[in-house]
Amino acid sequence: MEPLVDVFDEGDCILVIAEVPGAEQNSIAVELENHTLKIRAGGKYGEYRGEVGLPAEVQPNGLAWTLNNGIVELRLKRKRA
Amino acid sequence: MEPLVDVFDEGDCILVIAEVPGAEQNSIAVELENHTLKIRAGGKYGEYRGEVGLPAEVQPNGLAWTLNNGIVELRLKRKRA
Repeated sequence: MEPLVDVFDEGDCILVIAEVPGAEQNSIAVELENHTLKIRAGGKYGEYRGEVGLPAEVQPNGLAWTLNNGIVELRLKRKRA
Repeated sequence: MEPLVDVFDEGDCILVIAEVPGAEQNSIAVELENHTLKIRAGGKYGEYRGEVGLPAEVQPNGLAWTLNNGIVELRLKRKRA
């Protein structure tokens, strides 16, 4: 399944919200490839694989995410020139 | 928002699965009205309101549900004749 993904430009940060209902904490994998963020997740209801283009260059380190009630939230720091 | 709802007829039970990503435990309200199951849920990402028709008469007591990773699961006992 493809997760529903929203991307918000918050100035210093890019906020990414992905809906992955049923996905479990230890299933989440997030990867950054150039301007594309890839998200994988899964659980007993199925597997999610999604890709989303980011509106700005972000710092490749620090792909910290949280999972709460089936929603993955990431805040990516915008790369400074 | 309307939640995605699946209904499965498991013989003795009707299984209802509702996707409510972001919804919090204490927001869930489930109500049975004749053959219609109403589900409400919400959290910081928004509110869900859904209705689904059930394929059989179920026992009105015991509307026990669980919420796990943004998915509400209910097992309703089919009414015996």
